Amino acid sequence: MRILVLGGDGYLGWPTALHLSHKGHEVGVVDSFARRQYDHEMGVDSLVPISHLQRRVSVWEDISGLRVVPYVGDLTDADFVERTLREFAPDTIVHFAEQRSAPYSMIDRKHAVYTQVNNVVGTLNLLYAIAEIDPSIHLVKLGTMGEYGTPNIDIEEGFIEITHRGRTDVLPYPKQPGSFYHLSKVHDSHNIMFACRIWGLRSTDLNQGIVYGQETEETVLHPELATRFDYDGVFGTVLNRFCVQAVVGHPLTVYGSGGQTRGMLNIRDTLACVELAALNPPEAGEFRVFNQFTESFSIRQLAELVCQTFPGRVEVLTAPNPRVEKEEHYYRAAHTKLLDLGLVPHLLDQRTISSLLAVADRHRDRVDPSAIEATVDWRRTASTMPTAAGGVRVKSEPTEA
Amino acid sequence: MRILVLGGDGYLGWPTALHLSHKGHEVGVVDSFARRQYDHEMGVDSLVPISHLQRRVSVWEDISGLRVVPYVGDLTDADFVERTLREFAPDTIVHFAEQRSAPYSMIDRKHAVYTQVNNVVGTLNLLYAIAEIDPSIHLVKLGTMGEYGTPNIDIEEGFIEITHRGRTDVLPYPKQPGSFYHLSKVHDSHNIMFACRIWGLRSTDLNQGIVYGQETEETVLHPELATRFDYDGVFGTVLNRFCVQAVVGHPLTVYGSGGQTRGMLNIRDTLACVELAALNPPEAGEFRVFNQFTESFSIRQLAELVCQTFPGRVEVLTAPNPRVEKEEHYYRAAHTKLLDLGLVPHLLDQRTISSLLAVADRHRDRVDPSAIEATVDWRRTASTMPTAAGGVRVKSEPTEA
Repeated sequence: MRILVLGGDGYLGWPTALHLSHKGHEVGVVDSFARRQYDHEMGVDSLVPISHLQRRVSVWEDISGLRVVPYVGDLTDADFVERTLREFAPDTIVHFAEQRSAPYSMIDRKHAVYTQVNNVVGTLNLLYAIAEIDPSIHLVKLGTMGEYGTPNIDIEEGFIEITHRGRTDVLPYPKQPGSFYHLSKVHDSHNIMFACRIWGLRSTDLNQGIVYGQETEETVLHPELATRFDYDGVFGTVLNRFCVQAVVGHPLTVYGSGGQTRGMLNIRDTLACVELAALNPPEAGEFRVFNQFTESFSIRQLAELVCQTFPGRVEVLTAPNPRVEKEEHYYRAAHTKLLDLGLVPHLLDQRTISSLLAVADRHRDRVDPSAIEATVDWRRTASTMPTAAGGVRVKSEPTEA
Repeated sequence: MRILVLGGDGYLGWPTALHLSHKGHEVGVVDSFARRQYDHEMGVDSLVPISHLQRRVSVWEDISGLRVVPYVGDLTDADFVERTLREFAPDTIVHFAEQRSAPYSMIDRKHAVYTQVNNVVGTLNLLYAIAEIDPSIHLVKLGTMGEYGTPNIDIEEGFIEITHRGRTDVLPYPKQPGSFYHLSKVHDSHNIMFACRIWGLRSTDLNQGIVYGQETEETVLHPELATRFDYDGVFGTVLNRFCVQAVVGHPLTVYGSGGQTRGMLNIRDTLACVELAALNPPEAGEFRVFNQFTESFSIRQLAELVCQTFPGRVEVLTAPNPRVEKEEHYYRAAHTKLLDLGLVPHLLDQRTISSLLAVADRHRDRVDPSAIEATVDWRRTASTMPTAAGGVRVKSEPTEA
C-alpha cells in the first residue's frame, strides 16, 4: 500500500512512517517543520535529540534498505498539496500535520487564530485535492478524544443513537471541546464528514487519547531514528512530563484536584491503530470514527503510578489548574472498533513507566527546569510566556490604536 | 442601549440598524463592503438599487433626526475590531458580518477557504476583543437553521436532553450542515460557546431560517433607505427569487422534488427578533440559542403560493438539484423562545407575496435573466460561473503544477 504520512517529522508522524515502511508499505512523509519552529519560538527542545528529516530518512535507508520519500511543504499551500498527491499517488493518507497543543492555541488571539486557520485550511486543501485527484484515497485523520469533552453520559465512537419525542436517529456525537486547538479538530471533523457526503470520499477520524512513550520497534534501532519527547508546559503531555519531573527531582505538578480522567495509549499502539485503519478502509462515501485509546486514568492515578515506580523520593504538588475544565466528572468512553480490527494493546504498567523514566534519565542533562511550568492560562486572553532567557512576551501586537 | 451592527450595510444589517435607531437605541454600523464586492465578482446587482452607506446614513439623519455612526473596516483586521469596540463602547453587538451564501462557499476551494477563514477569524477576533475590552457586552450572533441539517428527530433550540445507557445530560444539538458556509456557522457556534465558558462572555446565537421580504417600516420612508434584494443563483434566496421569476416570465425553478422543508420568516420579524434578543440579554457566561423563524414550508409549497398569487400564468420547472440534500424528509423544529420574549410574527400570506411581487415588478427592467440559473454544483470541486459577460471562470488557480 502507498501511504503518505502528513506531519511525518513529528512526535507520532515519524515513528508511524518508520513502522509502516517496516511493515512493507511504500511510504512518503510530508512536513513543513512547523513543529521544530514552535521549539524556536518557545525556546525549548525535545528532551531526546532529534536529527533532521533528511538525515533520519537516510539512516533508515542504511539500516533497513527501505526508502521513505520526504516532501517538504505546508498543507496551507494548496499547490504543494496537489503536486505532492499527484506525484506520490497514495492509496492512504495519514494526517498528523496539525498544530496539536491545547496550551499553544490558548496563548493569545494570534495563536488561536493561527491554530484554527492552519488546521482547518490545511485539511480543506487536502479534501479538495483528494476529491480532484483521486476520491478513492482513504484519509486517516488524527482527531482527539478531547473533542468530546466530559459529558455526563457514555461517549460513543463518533455517532450516537438518540430517541427524542418518540423518534430515533443516529447523529454525530455532540462535541464540547476544551481549547481553540480541540475546537479546530471539531471543525475538521465536521468538514470531513461533509466532504465524504458530497464527494463520496472515504475517511477514518481517529479520536486519539493522550499518547505516552518514546521508543518504538523501529526508533530504537539507531539514535538518529529517535522521535521527539516533550516535557515543557506547552507541548509536553502528562505522563511523559511526570517522568521527567521525577528524574530531575521536580515535584509532579497535578493541576487542580487531579480527578480529570482521560483516555490514554502507548505510542506503539498509535502505530498499530493507524496501520489497522489503513488496512481496513471504509466504503466510498463513509465517514467513520474510531476512539483510539486503550485505558482511562485520572491525572491523580498517573502521578501515583510514577511515585510507585520511581526508585527514589517524589513529591506531588497540587498546582492551580490553568484550564477551565471539570476536575471531578463521569468518564466512560467506548473504544471497541480498533479492538475489533485486531488491536492488541500495550497496557500501562510499572515496566512501561520504568522504560520512560530510563529515557528521561538518559537525557536528564538536557532538561530545562524553567520550561516545565504551565504558563498558559485559559482564563486570560494573553499569557506571558517565559523562555530560557526569561520573561519574553510572545504576544507583540499593539493593544491600542 | 448602545448597539453596534456588524455587516450593517447588508440585506438584513442595514434595515436592522435603521429599526434599532428608530426604536431609540444608539446605533453604530460596521461594514467592509465585502457583500458589494461579491456583486462585482459575480457580475450581478441587487434588484433594488441601493445607495452607498455614507449616503444612507445621511438620508436617515435628514428624515429621522437620528444619527447612525458608520465604521468602515473588516473583522479579520483585529486592530480595527479592537479600535471600533473601544471607540463605540457598545452594550450589544449584532453580528451579521459573514459571507452568507451557501452556493458562494461551494464555487471552489478558494471560495470555501475564504468563507471559513473570513467567518471564523472575524468571529474569533470579535470574541477576543470583547473579552479584553468589556466582557459584559452581549454578542447577538446570526447563525442559521441550516446548521442542524435534516435529522429524523425534532430539532430543539441549540441543546437537547439525551438519555443514554441510563444516564442523562443536556448537550449541544448535533449538527449536520449542508455547505462549507453552513459549516462555518457551526464552527462559530462551537467557538462562541467555548468563549462564554472560559471568559464568562454572554451570547445569543440566532439560528435563523430563510428570510423573505424587502420592505420594512423604516426602509420605505425614502428610496435611498432601501435594502438590497437578491434574485441571482448565488445570493438569491428562494421566495424572493420565485417572485422575480414570476414577474419576468421565467419558470419558477424548483430543485429536485421540492420536498425540502425549511423554517422561514419575514424580514420585519428578523428586526423584531434581534431587538428582543438585545433587550433580554443572557447572564454572564451564558451561551443560548434561539431558532429564529416563524413557519416551515417546503419549496414546492412556496412555488404553489407564488403561482396562486401572481395575476398571470406561471410555469414551474423541476431542475436538477445542485445541492446534496434530502428532498423528502421529516422536519419539525422548535421555535418558542422568541415567541416567549414577545415576538408577534408576520405570517406568510398572499398579501405578503403580492407586496414582494410589486417590488419585483417595480424593478423588472433591472433583472438579468442569465443571473437566475443555479450554476454552483455541490458535487463538483470547481464550478464554472457564467456572468453577464458570459462564461467567465472565477476559478483561476492552476490545476497542475
